[in-house]
Amino acid sequence: MAEKKAVVLVSGGLDSATVLAIATNEAFACHCLAFDYGQRHRSELDASLRISDALRAGAHKVIKLDLQTIGGSALTDDSIAIPEPGSVTSAEQTSDIPITYVPARNTIFLSIALGWAEVLGASDIFIGVNAVDYSGYPDCRPEYIAAFEQMANLATRASVEGQRVQIHTPLISMTKEEIIKRGTNLGVDYGLTVSCYQATASGLACGRCESCLIREQGFHAAGIADPTHYK
Amino acid sequence: MAEKKAVVLVSGGLDSATVLAIATNEAFACHCLAFDYGQRHRSELDASLRISDALRAGAHKVIKLDLQTIGGSALTDDSIAIPEPGSVTSAEQTSDIPITYVPARNTIFLSIALGWAEVLGASDIFIGVNAVDYSGYPDCRPEYIAAFEQMANLATRASVEGQRVQIHTPLISMTKEEIIKRGTNLGVDYGLTVSCYQATASGLACGRCESCLIREQGFHAAGIADPTHYK
Repeated sequence: MAEKKAVVLVSGGLDSATVLAIATNEAFACHCLAFDYGQRHRSELDASLRISDALRAGAHKVIKLDLQTIGGSALTDDSIAIPEPGSVTSAEQTSDIPITYVPARNTIFLSIALGWAEVLGASDIFIGVNAVDYSGYPDCRPEYIAAFEQMANLATRASVEGQRVQIHTPLISMTKEEIIKRGTNLGVDYGLTVSCYQATASGLACGRCESCLIREQGFHAAGIADPTHYK
Repeated sequence: MAEKKAVVLVSGGLDSATVLAIATNEAFACHCLAFDYGQRHRSELDASLRISDALRAGAHKVIKLDLQTIGGSALTDDSIAIPEPGSVTSAEQTSDIPITYVPARNTIFLSIALGWAEVLGASDIFIGVNAVDYSGYPDCRPEYIAAFEQMANLATRASVEGQRVQIHTPLISMTKEEIIKRGTNLGVDYGLTVSCYQATASGLACGRCESCLIREQGFHAAGIADPTHYK
């Protein structure tokens, strides 16, 4: 039987490492995709490569994509400060959507994954979106993912030829505790991952940003020792 | 009244120049977006800037995006020859979709346009897709554009806040003759545009590839002198 290929978005964080372990466990030959998009926390790119290696992914590509050119997010724009929890003023945040939201990021990443999937002859794409901890991000909602999948199935040569693209979001309704337990059962070494929005060049976490706090609480709730390397 | 901003995809070709003229004529403040995606015909990037200048667009950004990394098209992969009409063998072409199709290109370009539109506070995106001459490209079909628009309206912070994104495709059912007549009426100087898939560095067209032939026939049918600079 021919191997079943998948494209897996691997950012270097805890969630996407878990997704890669899940896809591997489902017997997909995983082709990992990371983006060098001008993010501040560039050590996540090193982490994504370490994770692909550790989980023996078949391929790992990093696509350069200059999202700083369009700006609009604390994650790509040095002039916007990354807030610590409780410090966001009403002037900085006018809706429930965090300032760390990058405009259309998941749409852009999934679109490029779709292009690569078509080249590979793959019809499965995995992404670690989560509607529990990131409920403020519009592009983490199930209805958004369903609409992307529908669009993808009209967008490609493969779709014209009858192959159906599926967007897999195994974490979408899991809590951080559940994600950590699942990944630990699958042998993920979370010490390799970087979640911090302002990690050092060598991947040390600040321990204070929202992403760090959610992660820390997840390990605590799961009753698993936190392997994060803090500053 | 606040000006109505639009993001316009301007490739440097005849179609997108016409779209920019149409959007300008509809009183949009046009923000032009071009992509340096590893295309062979790089003189189109110079052309896109000339066109934005000539039509007095408010802004022009070029996003670097390495689609060569995923490959799969004669337009980005040097190992795939660009066929001349009638020369394509069955081994090279296994469907009705041209080998010059770039996997998921319009999806990727529209996604980045969506991100910029959100940063700008724009809810209108213009793209020069055409279902007549490019009927073999899945991502030029009206049903694809409708699905993208639906997805876009779930993808962004703006959509959560009630702003509806609209994807404008003014050329979608026009013939090349009609496009040229419309653009000429709006004052487009088609001598600035480059359509050839293998234009020289200075923008001279080969006169033999499919894109050149469609363009040449368009001027002939419109009864307008062809201003294309040929080799």
